[in-house]
Amino acid sequence: MQDLALYSAYLEKEIKAIDFPQSPANLYEPLRYFLSLGGKRMRPILTLLGAELFGEPKENALSAALSVEVFHNFTLIHDDIMDEAPLRRNKETVHTKWNQNIAILSGDVLFVKGYQLLVKQRPEHLQPLIELFNKTAIEVCEGQQMDMDFETRKDVSIDEYIEMIRLKTSVLLGCALEMGAVIGNATESDRKHIYNFGQNIGIAFQIQDDILDLFADPDKFGKQVGGDVISNKKTLLNLQAFLLASEEQKQILEKLSVERNSELKIEETKSLYEKIGARASCEKEMENYHAKAMTSLEAITVNDNAKETLIELANFLMNREL
Amino acid sequence: MQDLALYSAYLEKEIKAIDFPQSPANLYEPLRYFLSLGGKRMRPILTLLGAELFGEPKENALSAALSVEVFHNFTLIHDDIMDEAPLRRNKETVHTKWNQNIAILSGDVLFVKGYQLLVKQRPEHLQPLIELFNKTAIEVCEGQQMDMDFETRKDVSIDEYIEMIRLKTSVLLGCALEMGAVIGNATESDRKHIYNFGQNIGIAFQIQDDILDLFADPDKFGKQVGGDVISNKKTLLNLQAFLLASEEQKQILEKLSVERNSELKIEETKSLYEKIGARASCEKEMENYHAKAMTSLEAITVNDNAKETLIELANFLMNREL
Repeated sequence: MQDLALYSAYLEKEIKAIDFPQSPANLYEPLRYFLSLGGKRMRPILTLLGAELFGEPKENALSAALSVEVFHNFTLIHDDIMDEAPLRRNKETVHTKWNQNIAILSGDVLFVKGYQLLVKQRPEHLQPLIELFNKTAIEVCEGQQMDMDFETRKDVSIDEYIEMIRLKTSVLLGCALEMGAVIGNATESDRKHIYNFGQNIGIAFQIQDDILDLFADPDKFGKQVGGDVISNKKTLLNLQAFLLASEEQKQILEKLSVERNSELKIEETKSLYEKIGARASCEKEMENYHAKAMTSLEAITVNDNAKETLIELANFLMNREL
Repeated sequence: MQDLALYSAYLEKEIKAIDFPQSPANLYEPLRYFLSLGGKRMRPILTLLGAELFGEPKENALSAALSVEVFHNFTLIHDDIMDEAPLRRNKETVHTKWNQNIAILSGDVLFVKGYQLLVKQRPEHLQPLIELFNKTAIEVCEGQQMDMDFETRKDVSIDEYIEMIRLKTSVLLGCALEMGAVIGNATESDRKHIYNFGQNIGIAFQIQDDILDLFADPDKFGKQVGGDVISNKKTLLNLQAFLLASEEQKQILEKLSVERNSELKIEETKSLYEKIGARASCEKEMENYHAKAMTSLEAITVNDNAKETLIELANFLMNREL
């Protein structure tokens, strides 16, 4: 993973160098703070790798890469308000540290900053880059709205759930990669392949996230295991369990959803999900999307050697070694 | 005003035709609703007039005009949340009719829609159009943040106040006009002149707004006269009054700020502002900006006949006949 660490360090330095005015302090201080919270910087790395795959030096895709990261952070600031989340990466969220109005407005400004960075790319790439960015931004909002709508719905289907995670999180990975491909003057069909690679890896990654939330080794998992179960969150595991359960098992699941002993609730749900076959079914779905992603990657018309870092990245994401 | 009504009707039809998907309904229904609430559509008219001034048919500036109107509506949706405003144009605001999360997210989507419309303009104009749009969007957010900061500050200067209204409301008028000029292939210096015309008319208009809020004829004024005084809002009138008042008058002003009888509070403040000279001083300031605007308009290197509709519009705005 030496390679990826180098990209990450390069981006960290450039993110730090993004220039915000001093005043109004209540608008820009929250942005300096939030962007300094870190993260894996996976999305901008994808843009750099996308450009390099088509022979373009990573430096030529830097502004686009930063615009993707900045956009991602804008969505996090607004999502944190909507989710009433007090913490992000173990630090206070913007609306907690300042207030909600400041979080709305500084989020809005950060969104514009994304466009400001993107428009620095070469003029001949502007139209495809901005069209892709616009389309993706709208889809991410649609995904977030679907996620909020699901909270109060009882009839969410597996297809709807997959569509929600595709929009909310996966299209941005596809977009990040395709931006690099646009900058590298890739053909239309290679652009589509690399987009699909990113999108499908993103879906596989999210499904893995659902599985790990309950089945991860607590010693290696960064956060509390079973958080989704405690909050009765709709996840692929949960939807699959209800789909595959017998009438009797459904009744047990309903009972477990109101169980107040958290430890018991997690343990019982876990063993029931295994028994019902929900875990296995989710793992199969995850493998499916991972395989689709690899097929798209193979279809790209560049030398196989050039794809190695992307394969490494995909494996890294699917094994969660970080 | 026959002319302006025609532009307005043209835009109303085109705004109605802006296409939003059906789903997620909670994301797009609020946007269809909010855009249908109407308004004078002054900003997009400016873009059409800006293009025509430089010999470009208004149809060629339509997408840019719509993007300005859409952006303006996005800022209104988010501002209404921040101001906790229950009504906009006598109808429920988005966060009141739906909820706050939906207002945040549908506002975000509307912002992207603005960029989607703008990117439909001819490729050779994209970079200057988007750069202008970005710069303006950031300034509008800065103005809103300053306005919020002012609420809790006691030491706001006249210059700061003018800077706040310049950013919050006037730069968008300059931007709307300059976009038209970009599309009409105007020279750099004509672009600057038309921008300054719009910006200074905007400042004059806002100052007039402050004056009218207290001194308008209640029969002709659309809303309650004296609203700013009742809520102790910092306005140019209020700041000028404190600047020009004697120590004794300052004490009376302080007393009036906690007066609970609204009618009395308005009447006493009104007569004191006249006596102190705050009204006259604001009117002079307003005239100043209006004159600056006209100087910028004169400097534009096109035939005087072509400027007639813009002069008509400026007079219309400053006389508030609508």
